[in-house]
Amino acid sequence: MKKGKVAFFVTGNVHKFHEARGVLSEFNIATAMLNIEAVEIQADDLKKIAMASALDAARKSGLSVFVEDAGLFVNALKGFPGPYSNYVYRTIGTKGILKLMEKIKQRDACFQSVVAFCDPKGETEHLCFEGRVDGKIAHEEKGQRGFGFDPIFEPLGGRGTTFAEMSIEEKNRYSHRAKALRKFAKWCAQKC
Amino acid sequence: MKKGKVAFFVTGNVHKFHEARGVLSEFNIATAMLNIEAVEIQADDLKKIAMASALDAARKSGLSVFVEDAGLFVNALKGFPGPYSNYVYRTIGTKGILKLMEKIKQRDACFQSVVAFCDPKGETEHLCFEGRVDGKIAHEEKGQRGFGFDPIFEPLGGRGTTFAEMSIEEKNRYSHRAKALRKFAKWCAQKC
Repeated sequence: MKKGKVAFFVTGNVHKFHEARGVLSEFNIATAMLNIEAVEIQADDLKKIAMASALDAARKSGLSVFVEDAGLFVNALKGFPGPYSNYVYRTIGTKGILKLMEKIKQRDACFQSVVAFCDPKGETEHLCFEGRVDGKIAHEEKGQRGFGFDPIFEPLGGRGTTFAEMSIEEKNRYSHRAKALRKFAKWCAQKC
Repeated sequence: MKKGKVAFFVTGNVHKFHEARGVLSEFNIATAMLNIEAVEIQADDLKKIAMASALDAARKSGLSVFVEDAGLFVNALKGFPGPYSNYVYRTIGTKGILKLMEKIKQRDACFQSVVAFCDPKGETEHLCFEGRVDGKIAHEEKGQRGFGFDPIFEPLGGRGTTFAEMSIEEKNRYSHRAKALRKFAKWCAQKC
């Protein structure tokens, strides 16, 4: 590999890291996983959460870093589990979402992702890149790949397959995270 | 009313304010509602959340303040909705919890409350008072009083009535919040 840029990704999630590495490598950017604890605030808006985490992580590490925050927003559940998808996954899980969706025909949902970048001085603290994918909540869990709510989310255009039935490369063609990361990578390749 | 102490309660929730006023008045402490926006972090531990909010609010206001954070923890749902009870209430609501609890016999749950006090210098930032009430998730909503998940929570010793069927005075005999507030008030009456 020729000498290139390195982007520091603050995350403890190996799945997210592999997805990011795949996207950023398309732009000749290497991804380094930075497993430090950054503050995470409560807010209904992913952008606010991601920006606060990026600022905190950049200050703590003394590096220019990016963070990624994502959520599953189910229309019939008023956007639940939204920004708290991680906690909801760890408690009621995919089975809980399926139970809440029993007898509900309107199964529209979307995954949203925000990538926030920040330098240690906080000068770029408002730099955000967003991605979104629309789809449906499946009637049952399908697939073993991915993580989180992937087994119950069928992206539009995916012929009814869930994210958990796709390889990382396939998922990165559709996913909210890949869209946000691609916007970030384009910016990073030119500017950072 | 004779001249006494005033405690500043950072909250935007009028129900919480009335409950606090009732408890603190037993100790001759007047309660003032301070409706400022304090940071709220994501954590599975109510103490961490409350302490961070109290510190932030004390610094912003220049006053010694207390905040209160509470959650409903349902055993069969691995503690869900826990620290995110407010968001869960605003999205899937009491009906969502009842749906998740369909066909589940083990209905044990508890409400937990943490009162955190902080002065503007942050010297008392680790001062916390905890309260807890055990009970059951009802099979249907009952009562119009209170707020949040009160209509589906039956405290032990309450003869099957929910918090939403009780007056503030009755609820304050059982509730997690009143227990935490009473500990805080005892301390405040002597020390603060």
